[in-house]
Amino acid sequence: MSHFDPVIILVQPQMGENIGAAARAMLNFGLSELRLVNPRDGWPNERAVAMASRADSILENVKVFESTEGAIADLHHVYAATARPRDMIKPVVTPRQAATDIRQSSAREQRTGILFGKESRGLDSDDVSRADTILTVPLNPDFSSINLAQTVLLLAYEWYQVEDQTPGKYLQNEERPPTKEEYSYLFKRIEDELDAREYFDRFPQRKNIIMRNMRDMFQRANLVETDIKAFQGMIKGISRPKKQQD
Amino acid sequence: MSHFDPVIILVQPQMGENIGAAARAMLNFGLSELRLVNPRDGWPNERAVAMASRADSILENVKVFESTEGAIADLHHVYAATARPRDMIKPVVTPRQAATDIRQSSAREQRTGILFGKESRGLDSDDVSRADTILTVPLNPDFSSINLAQTVLLLAYEWYQVEDQTPGKYLQNEERPPTKEEYSYLFKRIEDELDAREYFDRFPQRKNIIMRNMRDMFQRANLVETDIKAFQGMIKGISRPKKQQD
Repeated sequence: MSHFDPVIILVQPQMGENIGAAARAMLNFGLSELRLVNPRDGWPNERAVAMASRADSILENVKVFESTEGAIADLHHVYAATARPRDMIKPVVTPRQAATDIRQSSAREQRTGILFGKESRGLDSDDVSRADTILTVPLNPDFSSINLAQTVLLLAYEWYQVEDQTPGKYLQNEERPPTKEEYSYLFKRIEDELDAREYFDRFPQRKNIIMRNMRDMFQRANLVETDIKAFQGMIKGISRPKKQQD
Repeated sequence: MSHFDPVIILVQPQMGENIGAAARAMLNFGLSELRLVNPRDGWPNERAVAMASRADSILENVKVFESTEGAIADLHHVYAATARPRDMIKPVVTPRQAATDIRQSSAREQRTGILFGKESRGLDSDDVSRADTILTVPLNPDFSSINLAQTVLLLAYEWYQVEDQTPGKYLQNEERPPTKEEYSYLFKRIEDELDAREYFDRFPQRKNIIMRNMRDMFQRANLVETDIKAFQGMIKGISRPKKQQD
């Protein structure tokens, strides 16, 4: 965690639970610096600690300020998280855009903070006007009331994703794919067992098509070496005579 | 909301609050179909309703199932949300990748569901093995315990962003920029007021540089028409003689 990672600033937060949940969301995505401006129930706050669970290290290092101006004094870039349009001329960004811009500022050793308002009414317009940029989460216009900690979560999530190297898709526990010879043995086994039971006798002219479709199906299935063995075993099992019932 | 939007499936959820919070997160991002498999405290659940606030329409339409198999029976694609690596060979995707893939399946009129496990232990391996794909949120490896409803939130958020048209950055309440003539009047006014007070007399050879830097500063500032008027007013105010103190 770096000195240039963004600072989360909760202005007049009302519920300790939300402060704790915000701390958890921050730690989930590698953020650590939390500031509070005039928390309603004072500080420290037991409900915040109860909700934060293992993110209590963030709460222990919280700095409390008496004014928003004080809480942002050492920062170079300030965002104001707000869903409501304001009567001011100011750039508005998505969390995804903000995350990229914040990473670029960090790389230039400039510090960024994000202001989040109280649960009931959000940020007041004076605090929004102290910010360079408005941060608004694009969401369902018919239900745009989103919890404080969840907004923190989405910003922290996007910030983490900018540098995360996880591929969009990968195969867990990947084994080597079958060789074509391993496939051939399997196909031959299936064909032999069916032939031995005269499966194709009713439609001999379709045998080739059926076998070809079967090869397509297996080769489309992204099998691995052990899958071929499992199939061989199942065919061996199914081709056995049934046990006599007593 | 479409029949082909993804279905959220909570398997053995324990806390009603989390069911309600999941419903809110869904509605925030335009999802509506919620299924439950054997909720611990039965159904309906008052705590879920209290937490859901205006997302109660989602709760009213919840379908409850006795088995995961039943809850996914009509679906074509199933994801299992799990943070723990499993001893099975299966593709793993990020929420962002899943969101894109789900949108593509929807466009082909194929239905998708996402399984989320109980709060204490997540999904059991049998349920994971019923899914085509594992969904894992990339997060801080040192603090990877993330709340059920927050995982639902991140998936729903990503799903919504795929089709959302909000530009990454735009200027709210944009007015027209000043014309170059409006700038010129402002610069001339500033220069005249400074000249009248012999501001440049101590360093006449620097006047040109100072005025050029001032033009650069103003033109870098993304001003709009009314800003120029506000500046003219402020200069007029500052250039006035001070009132005499009594």
